[in-house]
Amino acid sequence: MRFKFPLMAIGLEVAMIVLFGVFVQYENVQNSGQPSNTSSPAVMNSFFRLYPLFQHVNVMIFVGFGFLMTFLKKYGFSSVGFNFFIAALGLQWGTIIQGLLNDHGEKFHISIHSLISADFSTTTVLVSFGAVLGKISPIQVLIMTILEIAVFNGNEYLFAEIFQATDIGGSMVIHAFGAYFGLAVAGILYRSNQIWEHHNKQSDIHSDLFAMIGTLFLWIFWPSFNSTLAVPEEKQNRAIINTYFSLAACVLTSYAFSSLVERRGKLSMAHIQNATLAGGVAVGTCADMEINPYGSMIIGSIAGIVSVIGFKFLTPFFATTLRIQDTCGVHNLHGLPGIVGGLASIVVIAMGASDVFNSKVTHLGTAT
Amino acid sequence: MRFKFPLMAIGLEVAMIVLFGVFVQYENVQNSGQPSNTSSPAVMNSFFRLYPLFQHVNVMIFVGFGFLMTFLKKYGFSSVGFNFFIAALGLQWGTIIQGLLNDHGEKFHISIHSLISADFSTTTVLVSFGAVLGKISPIQVLIMTILEIAVFNGNEYLFAEIFQATDIGGSMVIHAFGAYFGLAVAGILYRSNQIWEHHNKQSDIHSDLFAMIGTLFLWIFWPSFNSTLAVPEEKQNRAIINTYFSLAACVLTSYAFSSLVERRGKLSMAHIQNATLAGGVAVGTCADMEINPYGSMIIGSIAGIVSVIGFKFLTPFFATTLRIQDTCGVHNLHGLPGIVGGLASIVVIAMGASDVFNSKVTHLGTAT
Amino acid sequence: MRFKFPLMAIGLEVAMIVLFGVFVQYENVQNSGQPSNTSSPAVMNSFFRLYPLFQHVNVMIFVGFGFLMTFLKKYGFSSVGFNFFIAALGLQWGTIIQGLLNDHGEKFHISIHSLISADFSTTTVLVSFGAVLGKISPIQVLIMTILEIAVFNGNEYLFAEIFQATDIGGSMVIHAFGAYFGLAVAGILYRSNQIWEHHNKQSDIHSDLFAMIGTLFLWIFWPSFNSTLAVPEEKQNRAIINTYFSLAACVLTSYAFSSLVERRGKLSMAHIQNATLAGGVAVGTCADMEINPYGSMIIGSIAGIVSVIGFKFLTPFFATTLRIQDTCGVHNLHGLPGIVGGLASIVVIAMGASDVFNSKVTHLGTAT
Repeated sequence: MRFKFPLMAIGLEVAMIVLFGVFVQYENVQNSGQPSNTSSPAVMNSFFRLYPLFQHVNVMIFVGFGFLMTFLKKYGFSSVGFNFFIAALGLQWGTIIQGLLNDHGEKFHISIHSLISADFSTTTVLVSFGAVLGKISPIQVLIMTILEIAVFNGNEYLFAEIFQATDIGGSMVIHAFGAYFGLAVAGILYRSNQIWEHHNKQSDIHSDLFAMIGTLFLWIFWPSFNSTLAVPEEKQNRAIINTYFSLAACVLTSYAFSSLVERRGKLSMAHIQNATLAGGVAVGTCADMEINPYGSMIIGSIAGIVSVIGFKFLTPFFATTLRIQDTCGVHNLHGLPGIVGGLASIVVIAMGASDVFNSKVTHLGTAT
Repeated sequence: MRFKFPLMAIGLEVAMIVLFGVFVQYENVQNSGQPSNTSSPAVMNSFFRLYPLFQHVNVMIFVGFGFLMTFLKKYGFSSVGFNFFIAALGLQWGTIIQGLLNDHGEKFHISIHSLISADFSTTTVLVSFGAVLGKISPIQVLIMTILEIAVFNGNEYLFAEIFQATDIGGSMVIHAFGAYFGLAVAGILYRSNQIWEHHNKQSDIHSDLFAMIGTLFLWIFWPSFNSTLAVPEEKQNRAIINTYFSLAACVLTSYAFSSLVERRGKLSMAHIQNATLAGGVAVGTCADMEINPYGSMIIGSIAGIVSVIGFKFLTPFFATTLRIQDTCGVHNLHGLPGIVGGLASIVVIAMGASDVFNSKVTHLGTAT
Repeated sequence: MRFKFPLMAIGLEVAMIVLFGVFVQYENVQNSGQPSNTSSPAVMNSFFRLYPLFQHVNVMIFVGFGFLMTFLKKYGFSSVGFNFFIAALGLQWGTIIQGLLNDHGEKFHISIHSLISADFSTTTVLVSFGAVLGKISPIQVLIMTILEIAVFNGNEYLFAEIFQATDIGGSMVIHAFGAYFGLAVAGILYRSNQIWEHHNKQSDIHSDLFAMIGTLFLWIFWPSFNSTLAVPEEKQNRAIINTYFSLAACVLTSYAFSSLVERRGKLSMAHIQNATLAGGVAVGTCADMEINPYGSMIIGSIAGIVSVIGFKFLTPFFATTLRIQDTCGVHNLHGLPGIVGGLASIVVIAMGASDVFNSKVTHLGTAT
């Protein structure tokens, strides 16, 4: 037992090195999959245009998700520490799984898109981790990371390749998927309610400020997250603008509803830390569609309201009646807003605002 | 009273959505205001070249200003929380006001420049908020945001369109304006001096470290703030370099003067957190002019000294004699250095180092 | 004594302004050192392509190194405060020394490469500072900064110009150099072991979380650090990918070995904060070579292991037997991994994976 975690971690890293040695190579002119008359600069331009956005996503993953979960005084260091570990493992494993799926077991190359897609695989695990923080052991974290990334990539492949569906910001395939996967695991790891409640209440002014570091970096860079795989550039531009205004609107409604539902009109720190981000999740699916800024502001406003209501009424219900303890409330930040995003995209497509049928469907793994 | 804040916030968000629905559209080839033979890639190139700088400015606004004000133990969460709310409201309202002013009430489009200009509108309110932190209610915050952004945009329009003046980094139109607006509000909200003093003294090692997060991100990204609207690229390049070296020089003089004016040569944390940034404010107006790196270092050095002296001697004088309590010392970080910036630009133009008369005057709202 | 520090700081800033006035000018078409038919846009394109990477490096220097050292409760503010001061002085002084060396005493211009190289000069001092934190006075900090940057630049010049060696990420010339320079100074500043031990033990949950801010930003942006001076773009691309996967592998092995060497399989916070970064240091020298992702993962894995072992066994040995107190364990983060990097590059070149002999040798100061 004492050596189980280190030996498993070392074994996994050795496996990763072997898999990378067998399957992974650099992208260059010869293997970039572009017509042979394409010059190297084209590949490189795309790399360096997207590199800052890729780094925004990395800040979200390592700093954003890591610190968002520090609000619990007792689990401050665990949350950042495990988040770091999951992300480092997930980005390696995600690269492998995705490459194998998309290139059908042949050698594949590392492009800026494969780096970003691996980050997205990792995100699902980090979302789920928020539901089980404080109840999961290091070895369970390791197993969850490996399993969930495999399931996510299979699901995402089906979604994009077989159903030809599109979900540029991953409202459903990343956020809702990660939330419900996490809730399922939380249900399995259920612990006596008293202990949970006791730990859960312990936040203080400093742990709340640490959590705000996570919130703010997630908020700021969410437009990059939702747009980074959108092509062509006009869609990418639109995804940035839509996400930005959806998030801004979401802040106002989540503050307003927090004050409405809390005693004496006080603002709840949990709402400020989490519900303000729901607009980024919810606008994900239709971020690159022509929904106009006001359309994304409507989506963001609704997401903020739904998220606050979830925190206030659903999370306690889950904990007591369903025996599912959602430590960080991921159902309210990723689950419900992800569903809002899915519904919004149905409305948008029904209204004909999407040019989805004119454009080649791309998904996380194959965008170029 | 209990429902005043949430209802006002919801009402404002609904108003924003309606205004965006009526007036705002995406930028694209047809409406970008460029000659019709300009291809879409030109608009997009400018968007993606400036997007990383726009995100630097967002980090300054949400993380930088938010955490800079956490040094007061008691108001740590209020400062970050209200900062977040002001910024989210301000960027929507700023977009509307600016578009209406510049396009004379017609439909206008969202470009990277309009996003950045809206951030600048917001900055003025965040500067003012620093003067009234701990004395202002949520509803007053809301009203101040709406009013100040309207006044700022009117003022900025006058400044650039009527007087044909230029202030690329906003030393005067953003920083000095925000500081004196905030001081005026602080004068109105004056509270008994004992209470103020009592609260003001309470900072601790952790709250000081949180504040340094704000300071450092503001310091790092200030070159992006001062350069992001400069055209052509050669001026933008110059604005980055000038701001960078002005800030570096300012750190040395503010440390030196802090040690000179404090007891037993100790460094004051307030000076390190604030005065080190004065170089970014002061170099703003002439950042894009040919003042040479040594010129900007002189401006930064002076700003650091003026700012420390302001903290040591002016802030206590304001609080006791003028009955204006400047909670975060914004007069020393934004007010005085903004004036230094205005004076510096007069000297620079008198010496002929500016090519202001050869170039089309651009201002925050119309740069393309 | 009372005025020594402020007067020295002011004197240095005046000297910097004079030196900048005499030697430094903007880069533009006429003086960019490129063939005269090169148009201005080429210089500017390179500037704006690298500007986001330059800012990543600045985040590492000011936030990353600054907060990495906050883990000691007692020295939290000193570490961030002095780090800030050293960096602001170092980037000015580094610019001067480098320009004088490379342009043999003639006027030189500020390019994006000179800005980045000056950051690298500064990095060596920040590495050394980690070894002497808590034992050094402000005046000694000032002297160390001036001396070490001069020695570093002389050393780097010899390394690149005379020996025609290449070290793109600075494993040896920056990290190992900074670590051993710092250890030498720490040996000179040795204090009685009891006091050291007493201070050293005092970290708490909050100071550990502050340190993680440093760790995570260093980790995220290390690929930019190692790649920013690599030319052509294909090498830069490779340096980013190699560094990224080396760091990811390093996280797994350092967690695993931390759990192996600590009591009852617990993870050590010092290891998580530091050893996880060793992969970035160690892959530096061969980051731009064709070592393949699996090659960089092997280097990163070894670096993580070596670093943890250093923390566990070498640091106590240094403190007791050699009377060198390495406050932040820089020997384990920068010294040993730097040596691993040097050895790795010998292996790589022996195996013929480097195209070092086909390409013009560039070094920190002359890359264009």
